[in-house]
Amino acid sequence: MNRLPDSFALAMPPWFDAYTSTLPECIVSSTDRMALIIELSRLNIEHDTGGPFAAGVFELKSGRIISLGVNRVCAHDCSSAHAEVMALSLAQKRLGTYDLGGPDLPEHELVVNWLPCCMCYGATIWSGVKRLTIAGHGPELEEITGFDEGPRPADWVRELESRGIRLASDILRNEAIAVYKEFRNRGRLVYAPRQGSGS
Amino acid sequence: MNRLPDSFALAMPPWFDAYTSTLPECIVSSTDRMALIIELSRLNIEHDTGGPFAAGVFELKSGRIISLGVNRVCAHDCSSAHAEVMALSLAQKRLGTYDLGGPDLPEHELVVNWLPCCMCYGATIWSGVKRLTIAGHGPELEEITGFDEGPRPADWVRELESRGIRLASDILRNEAIAVYKEFRNRGRLVYAPRQGSGS
Repeated sequence: MNRLPDSFALAMPPWFDAYTSTLPECIVSSTDRMALIIELSRLNIEHDTGGPFAAGVFELKSGRIISLGVNRVCAHDCSSAHAEVMALSLAQKRLGTYDLGGPDLPEHELVVNWLPCCMCYGATIWSGVKRLTIAGHGPELEEITGFDEGPRPADWVRELESRGIRLASDILRNEAIAVYKEFRNRGRLVYAPRQGSGS
Repeated sequence: MNRLPDSFALAMPPWFDAYTSTLPECIVSSTDRMALIIELSRLNIEHDTGGPFAAGVFELKSGRIISLGVNRVCAHDCSSAHAEVMALSLAQKRLGTYDLGGPDLPEHELVVNWLPCCMCYGATIWSGVKRLTIAGHGPELEEITGFDEGPRPADWVRELESRGIRLASDILRNEAIAVYKEFRNRGRLVYAPRQGSGS
């Protein structure tokens, strides 16, 4: 008789509910949405509850906050618990659909404090969001933090657009980078895979 | 006061525990491991509990079954609940680590009934597994089922290898394809994103 694990749960950190209870229902400007996401990324390292990454799902037009997520890899021993997967899954749970671009729904946007890694790039495509808004992209994140972003397709912008996802980039880029520098300066763990000796 | 969702849980389908309780502790041959994964993909559509996809984490050498997963997107309204994410997360929960390639661990293998989609390709890279074993890759899955696999990097094999992940492919390829044909013939739902009118 083989009893295998059959469920798992992922949760936001202890400070999350108190912090988000003070937020407004809607955030109208893109810059203000990004400022919130960057602040969440900073709080996640300040409290040592995960990597320097945060994401949020918003109604594109109204700015209604549907969900917010931060990186929870180490806390939950789960390498898929990236901020984007957290935010998208929480939004889909709240709205009761696996397709945030489904019929009778307003358009949704995913806001992230950097270009999603190769896994979350795919998670974004499958989520149904119609806009991906990022603080920036380029070598800075890997250079500053030591994280690997993984291999994305060369024409990653066009691949998004061909699936009905618009890209907005370079919103509070320097502010996002400042948190990566804080992560490095605090000496926080870079949770890279295959740290065993067998590889 | 804004009460946002702060946790979510994903589980295997109702038939899972009874089925897996009959399995041995270890499955030594790669072909037998793949046969089990393909049978799980078939059971998932027979019971109408998700898409035609299954995955498992095994100890590479001994064949010890660490975890098994099937696609649970529709059941949980979660577009990230692919079979690979389920199996990898359940394995990491069981072993208490986000790195299946961590110190003092034997090598682990992810077995899937096709090349992982773009999201799960990334999830595989972050998981710490040291071998990815697939039934096959190529246009057949998309052609038969209507699913989009998403954009992977052109040199996806080399990108795996450069991160210490070996690939083994074409194990029970025809048997895997037979389940995709069964999925199509049953007229099961292809849960594509952005099915709203706004895109």
